[in-house]
Amino acid sequence: MTERPALTRLLISCADRPGIVSAVSGFLFTQGANIVRSDQYTTNPEGGDFFMRMEFFLPLSDAERDAFERDFTDRVAEPFEMGWRMWDTTQLKRVGILVSREEHCLLDLMWRWRRGSLEGHIALVASNHDDARADVEGFGIPYHHVPVTKETKPQSEERLLELFAGSCELVVLARYMQIVSGEFLERLGVPVINIHHSFLPAFAGAGPYERAKERGVKLIGATAHYVTEELDAGPIIEQDVIRVTHRDSIQTMKQLGADIERTVLARAVERHLEDRVLVTENTTVVF
Amino acid sequence: MTERPALTRLLISCADRPGIVSAVSGFLFTQGANIVRSDQYTTNPEGGDFFMRMEFFLPLSDAERDAFERDFTDRVAEPFEMGWRMWDTTQLKRVGILVSREEHCLLDLMWRWRRGSLEGHIALVASNHDDARADVEGFGIPYHHVPVTKETKPQSEERLLELFAGSCELVVLARYMQIVSGEFLERLGVPVINIHHSFLPAFAGAGPYERAKERGVKLIGATAHYVTEELDAGPIIEQDVIRVTHRDSIQTMKQLGADIERTVLARAVERHLEDRVLVTENTTVVF
Amino acid sequence: MTERPALTRLLISCADRPGIVSAVSGFLFTQGANIVRSDQYTTNPEGGDFFMRMEFFLPLSDAERDAFERDFTDRVAEPFEMGWRMWDTTQLKRVGILVSREEHCLLDLMWRWRRGSLEGHIALVASNHDDARADVEGFGIPYHHVPVTKETKPQSEERLLELFAGSCELVVLARYMQIVSGEFLERLGVPVINIHHSFLPAFAGAGPYERAKERGVKLIGATAHYVTEELDAGPIIEQDVIRVTHRDSIQTMKQLGADIERTVLARAVERHLEDRVLVTENTTVVF
Amino acid sequence: MTERPALTRLLISCADRPGIVSAVSGFLFTQGANIVRSDQYTTNPEGGDFFMRMEFFLPLSDAERDAFERDFTDRVAEPFEMGWRMWDTTQLKRVGILVSREEHCLLDLMWRWRRGSLEGHIALVASNHDDARADVEGFGIPYHHVPVTKETKPQSEERLLELFAGSCELVVLARYMQIVSGEFLERLGVPVINIHHSFLPAFAGAGPYERAKERGVKLIGATAHYVTEELDAGPIIEQDVIRVTHRDSIQTMKQLGADIERTVLARAVERHLEDRVLVTENTTVVF
Repeated sequence: MTERPALTRLLISCADRPGIVSAVSGFLFTQGANIVRSDQYTTNPEGGDFFMRMEFFLPLSDAERDAFERDFTDRVAEPFEMGWRMWDTTQLKRVGILVSREEHCLLDLMWRWRRGSLEGHIALVASNHDDARADVEGFGIPYHHVPVTKETKPQSEERLLELFAGSCELVVLARYMQIVSGEFLERLGVPVINIHHSFLPAFAGAGPYERAKERGVKLIGATAHYVTEELDAGPIIEQDVIRVTHRDSIQTMKQLGADIERTVLARAVERHLEDRVLVTENTTVVF
Repeated sequence: MTERPALTRLLISCADRPGIVSAVSGFLFTQGANIVRSDQYTTNPEGGDFFMRMEFFLPLSDAERDAFERDFTDRVAEPFEMGWRMWDTTQLKRVGILVSREEHCLLDLMWRWRRGSLEGHIALVASNHDDARADVEGFGIPYHHVPVTKETKPQSEERLLELFAGSCELVVLARYMQIVSGEFLERLGVPVINIHHSFLPAFAGAGPYERAKERGVKLIGATAHYVTEELDAGPIIEQDVIRVTHRDSIQTMKQLGADIERTVLARAVERHLEDRVLVTENTTVVF
Repeated sequence: MTERPALTRLLISCADRPGIVSAVSGFLFTQGANIVRSDQYTTNPEGGDFFMRMEFFLPLSDAERDAFERDFTDRVAEPFEMGWRMWDTTQLKRVGILVSREEHCLLDLMWRWRRGSLEGHIALVASNHDDARADVEGFGIPYHHVPVTKETKPQSEERLLELFAGSCELVVLARYMQIVSGEFLERLGVPVINIHHSFLPAFAGAGPYERAKERGVKLIGATAHYVTEELDAGPIIEQDVIRVTHRDSIQTMKQLGADIERTVLARAVERHLEDRVLVTENTTVVF
Repeated sequence: MTERPALTRLLISCADRPGIVSAVSGFLFTQGANIVRSDQYTTNPEGGDFFMRMEFFLPLSDAERDAFERDFTDRVAEPFEMGWRMWDTTQLKRVGILVSREEHCLLDLMWRWRRGSLEGHIALVASNHDDARADVEGFGIPYHHVPVTKETKPQSEERLLELFAGSCELVVLARYMQIVSGEFLERLGVPVINIHHSFLPAFAGAGPYERAKERGVKLIGATAHYVTEELDAGPIIEQDVIRVTHRDSIQTMKQLGADIERTVLARAVERHLEDRVLVTENTTVVF
């Protein structure tokens, strides 16, 4: 992905009814847009919800873009009572990362970013430990050490809000082993993606590999999900598994699992940055 | 899939240019169609090919349908020089199957058909052996024994054409170990899907498991593809693999492979019957 | 597996300590056995448990076999306080199957049996419904209809015990949707394998596909396990998964899941019949 | 793998005949060894080849080890005409890496090494480009730039032999895009592992992703194999695949492929370093 085309993306969700696709594509056509990709999904043709993602080329000046968005609102979005979002893909989303001691997920994201395969910009990294500083700064990314103890949790969250709120469009918990509060999520105001080191909903909570070993499962997995106030229960974006046998110790399972964790998290982050994930109730539509 | 909704499907391919989606969805909207699924794909926004598949509800009498198709031709298809095909999903496609001695793929298709998970009707089975007769007739499907020798091949193909041409919209080679001639394919006039017992293009031709064993591969696979005159080289619809080790004998590899073969073939046939496969050059677009 | 060699299998479990492998293989060597496969596993070299499976050729008359087993007991098994089991693979294990309405797992087992890929003999099938009779009897297997209601459950289990106890070395619940009692299991006295239509421990209990859909999981799975008195919690033998998306309805998930269920159950039954599964605590060693 | 036990490994290959396992385990037992893992494999009980890998604890001084090996030679290895190799796992194997421009495989190996999950020591890296110097030296590993042109190839190989021969027990081609000569391999005298960016034998040679795209394959893969004089035809150690669709451009396929390449290469290197790979004819036994 060495050069990125000047694409515009449009995401829409609304109650399903006839004529939505026609109205949207008709509007874009009359404006001179060249649609190159379009995905739709309806939960239920009778009274369900409708989701749409379009990619199109439409070179506009800033003034023209404002007029375009106003027109779209008046002539398409309001009549169909749409929730919608338009995004110029040349504006890379800024990503903030939180990490604790295990750094494999963080490193994987930084390598992908440097290889140019991430449609975003890693703006900063913060951690409750100072271990990863050298690695992160080696990539030219600012690193912030924000210790957390049971007593200082509110102050720590305050400090993290100063760092992240307004500075990024996405926060990634790349094996950040602290529970974040509902208030933190609300004040942060941008989506937060977490990687859980199990195939949720199996083995939610702590020590998933230990419990998987006791239970004798034959596949272990990882789950990337949006963070909600309820622990480990937010909408799932991506999951994958790897086969294990009785010969694999908990230590080996953790090492095998680390490969799955970083791959699953990277895929979820990539898809989010490409505006391919829409949330509906407690699930996701991933185009 | 106990009840099947009265859906119409529309498949389109043409040179890409602005306005196609808008024209199609606008036309459908003015006709009162309710689009429930739409997939598009462009090989290249600049001068590439455009492919589209739409599913919509539009209850029409036969007379209305004729008028609808005429209008679509005049107002959409011809201006955009489209290749297109419309399909009423209540009309199940008739499927003919050719098989030799190995019957696992045939059985799998018949079971799926009986379970109601195949959007088609298995109209007949023919084989160059008589082994599978009891099984096939047990499903209430006509069975035809058409022996083939090197000398009688032209007569055998003639007999198969009498049986299949005009009687089915799809022919499936479910481990049919005879090479079919280009003339046969042409006169048959409907798509033919074959299952090859290897991960093509690796191990094309005969004895793939034997050669995979000698080569020490760690995964064996199967490939479902449309049959063209060039052996084992037609457009690939679906592939899958399974892990093997040095402990697996050729006999075991064949047994493991049989599971992959029947699954891969069934998926390819299902997708074809659901009009989800479009051919372009030597590849497929699978929506 | 058209011809099956006259192999003997030996399975051993005991507390680990030095000299076990040497004692066993030394004994077999002096008796003239030709070991062709040997697997060992130690949970922990320090004070853990040791498991061993050996396959060897040793043609013996019945009288010689008795002497051989006495000698093995005296000179190897007792000194090491082994649990052990020896098995002549020409004696096919008899398998009984219980099924309810969903017959895909049952059919898959019967097909594999007829193809000769199952190291066992399907001796009988029983069901709380009469739906599968024609299919089962078509394979030449006795079919017993044993209805179950809440009131008649004890009598039904009594009837099943008459049919299965003493008539088979393995019972398979091939989508048998009744809970079997601890007393039934105890009196049956042979291992029972169940297929659960979820990736346990996620979605234990009823309606797993419905709950997976609500939760938005990206992979659905199946689990084959030995049945214990605690529901869905017995030692896991085999698991597998298949990818799903938001587009897959619950109906489609059930159809995709059916493919996984029958494959996972078949693998578990095959491995059990080949004496490759040993139970330890709540997990399995699968050689 | 923070602490590594003082294990000894023994690898054996010889013509199969009765008594091998008994002789080896009996010898080890009388010497006081505690066997913790043992794998055997016979290509064919009648006149085939036998392979064995044992892990055991046996703390010996250097003098005792010499005596032990002499005894083993006299009493076990020579009578059975064994090829064998014993290895003290506290002696980490030294690994040399060759790389060109694509650095994802190199980075993955270095990260695993730093995380302690590689049973070896990365001793040096050489490349025909200077791009990766900063990364490699950042890990504290010596980096050597050895340019190669068609004219200077012999001198370059000479230089590489000075660097690698005698300095490492394994050489890894981590996307090294130069063909190495048979003479180089012979003079190097240690195994060389290569990662090929296709699912061999499909798409051997250059441009595999381009050719896979044209052919419309549905899975792309990677293959790690020992390097032999015949290009891309050496014994395969590990392979894996990832699913692609018509939507994936060649560029995307390369990015997806990069994840598979680094995982497959890392697994092959890990298994080699753990002495789990034995070569027989053109295949491998991977315990």
